[in-house]
Amino acid sequence: MKKVPYRINLTEEYIPKQWYNISADMIDKAPPLLIPNTRKPATIDDLSQVFCRELSRQELDNENAYIDIPEEIRDYYRTCRPAPLMRAYALEKALCTPAKIYYKFEGNNTSGSHKLNSAIPQAYYAKQEGLKNLTTETGAGQWGTALSMACAHFGIDLTVYMVKGSYNQKPQRRTVMQVFGANVIPSPSNKTNSGKAMLEKLGKDTTGSLGCAITEAVEHAVSHENTRYVLGSVLNQVLLHQSIIGLESKAAMELYDEYPDIIIGCVGGGSSYGGLIAPFMGDKIKKTHNPYFIAVEPKSCPSLSRGKYSYDYCDVGQITPLAKMYTVGSDFIPSPDHAGGLRYHGMSPIISKLYDDKLIDEARAIEQTGIFDAAVEFARIEGILPAPESSHAIKVAMDEAVKCRETNEAKTILFVLTGTGYFDMSAYGAYMDKKMTDYIPTNEELKNSFEKLPEVE
Amino acid sequence: MKKVPYRINLTEEYIPKQWYNISADMIDKAPPLLIPNTRKPATIDDLSQVFCRELSRQELDNENAYIDIPEEIRDYYRTCRPAPLMRAYALEKALCTPAKIYYKFEGNNTSGSHKLNSAIPQAYYAKQEGLKNLTTETGAGQWGTALSMACAHFGIDLTVYMVKGSYNQKPQRRTVMQVFGANVIPSPSNKTNSGKAMLEKLGKDTTGSLGCAITEAVEHAVSHENTRYVLGSVLNQVLLHQSIIGLESKAAMELYDEYPDIIIGCVGGGSSYGGLIAPFMGDKIKKTHNPYFIAVEPKSCPSLSRGKYSYDYCDVGQITPLAKMYTVGSDFIPSPDHAGGLRYHGMSPIISKLYDDKLIDEARAIEQTGIFDAAVEFARIEGILPAPESSHAIKVAMDEAVKCRETNEAKTILFVLTGTGYFDMSAYGAYMDKKMTDYIPTNEELKNSFEKLPEVE
Repeated sequence: MKKVPYRINLTEEYIPKQWYNISADMIDKAPPLLIPNTRKPATIDDLSQVFCRELSRQELDNENAYIDIPEEIRDYYRTCRPAPLMRAYALEKALCTPAKIYYKFEGNNTSGSHKLNSAIPQAYYAKQEGLKNLTTETGAGQWGTALSMACAHFGIDLTVYMVKGSYNQKPQRRTVMQVFGANVIPSPSNKTNSGKAMLEKLGKDTTGSLGCAITEAVEHAVSHENTRYVLGSVLNQVLLHQSIIGLESKAAMELYDEYPDIIIGCVGGGSSYGGLIAPFMGDKIKKTHNPYFIAVEPKSCPSLSRGKYSYDYCDVGQITPLAKMYTVGSDFIPSPDHAGGLRYHGMSPIISKLYDDKLIDEARAIEQTGIFDAAVEFARIEGILPAPESSHAIKVAMDEAVKCRETNEAKTILFVLTGTGYFDMSAYGAYMDKKMTDYIPTNEELKNSFEKLPEVE
Repeated sequence: MKKVPYRINLTEEYIPKQWYNISADMIDKAPPLLIPNTRKPATIDDLSQVFCRELSRQELDNENAYIDIPEEIRDYYRTCRPAPLMRAYALEKALCTPAKIYYKFEGNNTSGSHKLNSAIPQAYYAKQEGLKNLTTETGAGQWGTALSMACAHFGIDLTVYMVKGSYNQKPQRRTVMQVFGANVIPSPSNKTNSGKAMLEKLGKDTTGSLGCAITEAVEHAVSHENTRYVLGSVLNQVLLHQSIIGLESKAAMELYDEYPDIIIGCVGGGSSYGGLIAPFMGDKIKKTHNPYFIAVEPKSCPSLSRGKYSYDYCDVGQITPLAKMYTVGSDFIPSPDHAGGLRYHGMSPIISKLYDDKLIDEARAIEQTGIFDAAVEFARIEGILPAPESSHAIKVAMDEAVKCRETNEAKTILFVLTGTGYFDMSAYGAYMDKKMTDYIPTNEELKNSFEKLPEVE
């Protein structure tokens, strides 16, 4: 067997021709989305009022394990995929570990993250269905950037409701979206009734919230012709598209007769981790392999490790379907942690179900300063500047590698490095200047939030 | 012949084992560097007072066409190279051109540019020689970032003098260097005698220049123990290291039986373009091929198109060796153009000689707003956010492709996309808000500057 290179750099023939739909292979399926007023399972027709029809179909598909990737989508993937699978030789050496560390690096495209994997199909299907406009919300901005790129490519107009606090704090991110032609609106805005109500209630100077931005984007979509709403995480369709991360990783490792013992990723809504683990989880369900899965989340927003497995709204405005998921409550407002992409109260229903069934073995919550310790160490050793979100996985991969040193086990560790930190330099600056603080919600705070969870029979 | 992919993604076996030294194959060599006070050609011993010894040797090597790349350097290259060679199918389609457009994309590493190609060997040789500290200057910040990364990897302390205009415009860029452990100082500073003199002369509100920052970094190096100065452009050694761009591009094109008819790149000091063209220029000198070479520069700093081919200082403080080059005069302070990496008064002596000998066929100067027109169009079509510097090459490649449409010629165009624009969002913002202006120096300004050129017999 030849030596594993530093960067396994597959040719475009290795771009999967089909996404892998883990739902089809799950013996116990995740409970369905429910329509809020009827509490009945959402149908394709229900979902199609907000989402594209094909995406609604994918959302509810529990039967087809493989779904063809249209050639036009593969053409776009060809410009930036397969993403490299890195062998972290330098990190292994620095940690003096016998572990073999691999990471799938999803930051090597202009969106700076894995978000493009789902933005491309979402924009593509919108175009196929003759839609002219899409709306979405963005917090940290990675999803908004990815979708702006995809919409520019497919000729779809895009309106992004950007949380006002981020809009003002991250003008660079806003400009990137504008360069790609998006109409970026700080939320709450006076463009929607829900935005006006929020401005009325909180005053002009409110920094807004992701919940409000979702509500505005959905309202905009349903109140305009030829317009639908798209979402960058949480949903089954997004995990489906993101399965390309896991499929490529598995194919690359197989070339070198490798299979991961431990599979690590950060979780906010669960899109990247759901995509990474999909084919490996399929193996675990079929009992051909038994990797150990660790989902990593911030201590400031501990949905898996301290949340409840319960039906909850996906947004603060409570206009979206109810999803059964690990949640700290849609009313819970996380502290302004810098890993904005992980500040979500809930969790992908698939990830939640797999965790509840103990197929995902462990959820580990880490405090922010520990994340940045790992991020800076990793950057200096591996020469990649990671996003704070991604650094959650880095931290735990490093911890596991150190355990291997102590136990002298040559385990194979795989994690996904979801994106780069170029637009997080103010957070890095705060860390370098030792001005970063940690925040952990109290039991009382969580209890108050749990009390507001909707009751579902 | 199989279809050229969107992204030619070579495996690490294609990383060259040797750099290509175009000087050895040039029939008429570039005139030597001269020591300022004696006006005698600089020797290895002279240069070694400022630079590492091996780098000084490489600087003066006119004989060895191929120079081995040490394995430790190739190991670092393996983490991010070969850089992809892209076929711009989407751009070709958008421009309705029969031209085939290829670009070498050097932005897919954390430094965001090609600068890492030379930063790695320069830090490596410093470590080999037992040095503990390096100093350098940076304009746009790409070189400083690349060198910070390389120094972090090899365990060398680094002090970066950053052009003050960029330091203020790009605080994120400064933080990146700090994350990688560098000490970043805005130039002109009061840390050096030359900095103090420049502040005195230009006032404390000066935005500085690359030339000023070079003087400070050199003074810092020669006045501290165990410290040497390194430079990211202009010098022969840098072009040597950057030849990896051209070698990889040529190897990738050969796999598909392609050879460029037109070869385009931006020029500031000439490092990326010198690297790109090296092997193709070798072919031209040996008369096996005859590609057409276009060097693109900003109208605000038109060294090749309006400068003089004359001996000049490489820095404002006039402490570096004299180089024969196209120059607008070391006293010329360019306007605060956003393409900071191209704000250099001079030009690589090799590029200058090749241009003077008409082996480089054309120098084309473009105004800033035209550059950003091209950058935004390219971003939307190709899904890459280019640096303003790189966009000079994009603009001319697009212009040449449009000419091909008009003449119906299926020419093969190759350019180097040197880096990404993530840290140039304030410039993009100014452009999107239509607040960007152009600046073209008057003949009078240039005449005044030429009058201060040093006299050399």
